[in-house]
Amino acid sequence: MREALSHMLATTRGVPATPSTVMVTRGSQQALDVTARALLAPGDLVAVEALGHRGAWTAFRLAGAQLVPVPVDGEGLSVAALAALVERQPIRAVYVTPHHQFPTTTVMSQTRRAELLSLAARHRLVILEDDYDHEFHYDGRPLLPLAASDRAGSVIYMGTLSKILAPGLRSGFVVAPEPTIERIVSFRVASDIQGDHVTECAIAELFEDGELARHVRRMRCTYMARRDALVAALKRVLGEAVRFQLPAGGMALWAGVAPEIDVERWAERSLARGVAFYGARMYDFEGRYQPFARLGFTFLDEDELREAARRMATALAELPRAAHARADGSAASRL
Amino acid sequence: MREALSHMLATTRGVPATPSTVMVTRGSQQALDVTARALLAPGDLVAVEALGHRGAWTAFRLAGAQLVPVPVDGEGLSVAALAALVERQPIRAVYVTPHHQFPTTTVMSQTRRAELLSLAARHRLVILEDDYDHEFHYDGRPLLPLAASDRAGSVIYMGTLSKILAPGLRSGFVVAPEPTIERIVSFRVASDIQGDHVTECAIAELFEDGELARHVRRMRCTYMARRDALVAALKRVLGEAVRFQLPAGGMALWAGVAPEIDVERWAERSLARGVAFYGARMYDFEGRYQPFARLGFTFLDEDELREAARRMATALAELPRAAHARADGSAASRL
Repeated sequence: MREALSHMLATTRGVPATPSTVMVTRGSQQALDVTARALLAPGDLVAVEALGHRGAWTAFRLAGAQLVPVPVDGEGLSVAALAALVERQPIRAVYVTPHHQFPTTTVMSQTRRAELLSLAARHRLVILEDDYDHEFHYDGRPLLPLAASDRAGSVIYMGTLSKILAPGLRSGFVVAPEPTIERIVSFRVASDIQGDHVTECAIAELFEDGELARHVRRMRCTYMARRDALVAALKRVLGEAVRFQLPAGGMALWAGVAPEIDVERWAERSLARGVAFYGARMYDFEGRYQPFARLGFTFLDEDELREAARRMATALAELPRAAHARADGSAASRL
Repeated sequence: MREALSHMLATTRGVPATPSTVMVTRGSQQALDVTARALLAPGDLVAVEALGHRGAWTAFRLAGAQLVPVPVDGEGLSVAALAALVERQPIRAVYVTPHHQFPTTTVMSQTRRAELLSLAARHRLVILEDDYDHEFHYDGRPLLPLAASDRAGSVIYMGTLSKILAPGLRSGFVVAPEPTIERIVSFRVASDIQGDHVTECAIAELFEDGELARHVRRMRCTYMARRDALVAALKRVLGEAVRFQLPAGGMALWAGVAPEIDVERWAERSLARGVAFYGARMYDFEGRYQPFARLGFTFLDEDELREAARRMATALAELPRAAHARADGSAASRL
C-alpha cells in the first residue's frame, strides 16, 4: 500500500514520497490526530484558517495546542497575517488547505505558496498541508501541493482516499521526512497498533491495476457535471439570493447570501424540507454569523440537485420576513 | 454490533452491558488509548501490575499519566499493596488483568476481587479491567469479570475479539457507564471518526448466527490440547530446567527457569533456532531480570510445539557455561 501510494503521489502530485516516508492511516482524521500528538506539546501555538475544519482544530486541541486563527480571503490563507503573527509569537505549526481551501474552496495563489514556504523555512514553522480533495479539480491543471516544492523539509503532507472510495472506508495517509514519520508511527502503534491489512491490500491492488485512476477520472467528470447542474439550478431558482464564483475544484460551492437573508435560519428551513447544508457559522473559528453557505454537490445526482435547489427556494420563501433582517438592522431598510 | 456484543457480554459473562454502554474499538489497544485520553489528566497516578502489559503502560503515559507499579503474586495483583498505595497517594485508576494475569496467567482469587471492588468504591478509584482472553479458560468454569459484580460503577471493562478472529482484524470494545462511554466516544471520534462498518456488520452476523460461539468452543478445545502438548513436551525434554503450574486458561505458560540458566540468553539462542519466546524482563515494570519465561502455545500445532520444545533444549545445551551463572554469582556454586 505504501509503495502504491508513494508511487501515485510522486507521479501525479510531484510529492517526493517513498514507502519509508509514508504512513497509511484510518482516514485524514487519524492522520491529524496522530500527527498532532507526535508533533505538539501542551501550550504549543498552532495557526489555523479562521474559516476552517473543526475536526483538525479538535485534534490539535486534544494534543494540548492553543489555536490562533488567521484570516482567509479569495487567495486562501493570508500569509501576510501569518507572517505578522509569527513575528510576535512562537508559532509551532500552521494548518492549511491550499488546494481548495476548506470551506471556501479557493485555490491558494502561487505567490502565497512561495511566501508561505519561505516563511516556514525562515522560522522553522511546520506546515500541516491537508490535501483532502486533490483529485477533484475541474478547470485547468491542479496546482501541485506545497509538499512538491518543499526544499526545507517544512511540510507534513496529508490526504485521504475515503473521498474517492467510500466515506465508511477510512483510508488516508501522512507524508513527512523519515524521522518525523517514525515518530508519528510510534503514536499510531500506541493508538491502534496497525492498519487494516485486508483493506490496504485491496486498495493497493486498485492502485496497481489502474482501476483507482480510472475511477477518479470517472468521478471527476461526474462531479464536474454535478457542480455545473447545481450552479445552473441555483441561478435559475434563487436568482440574486446567492452569489458565488464557479469553484475550480472541490466538492462544494461557497455561496455568498444576500444581506437580507438569515442563512442559518434558511439552512434550518431547508433541512425541514430534506435539504442539508451549513451556514458559515459552522466553519467560523469564533462561531460568528457570516452571510455564506457551503453547498455540497457531490452526494446528489443532477436531478436531485435541481430538486434540492427548488426546495431551497421554497424554504427561503417560507422564512418569516423578520428573519431576513440581521440583528444589527443593517438589512432592514432593504426589505 | 453493539447489540450483539452487549447481548453476548450479558449472557455469557454477567456484564450488564447495553448498546448504549458499549463502544466498539479497533482492538484493545485503541480501547486503552481512547479510554486513557478520556479519563486521565497530565500527572494523574495510575497503578499498574508490576509484571504487565507494556502497550497499556504506553497508552497511559501518552495520556500524561504517571505509573506506579503494584506487585503481583500467585493470586494476581496484590490488593493489600494497592490499598497501602491508595492511602499514601491520590491514585486515579488501577489497570488490572484479573482473568488470567498478563503475563503470569494467574487467576485473581475471589477474595482479592471482592477486596479490590470494595477498595475502589471507598476511594473512587477507577478499575480498568482488561479481559483480553476471557474465552480461553480450560479447567472449570471461568470466574465472572469484576464488571459483573461492580455495584459502585468503578469498572471500565475492556476486551478484544482479535484473539478469537484474527490478529490483523482489530476489533475490541469498552463497556462503561453511559456518561463515561459518551466521553470516551468523543475521543474516539476525534481520533478516527467511526468504526469499520463492513467488518462490524460481518462480526455482528457471526455473533447472531452462533458461528462465533461455535468457533470459540472449537478454539478452546484446540488450545487446551496445545497447552497439554507443550506441557508434556517441556517436561520430557527440559526436565528440571523449567517449572510451572498448569495454567487454568490463557494462551501461554509462565515458566520459572532454574537459577543456573540465564533466561534472556536462552531466549536469544532459541530465536536463532526459530523459536521465539520472551524472558520476564520484557514484562517487568523496571525491566529487571527475573528467572521466568512466557511460552505461548496458541500459534503452533501440537507437532510444532513438540519440535519447539526440542529446539529449546538444543538451544539450552548450546548456552556457554558462564552464561548459566547470574552476574551476582548466586548460582555459580550450583554448576
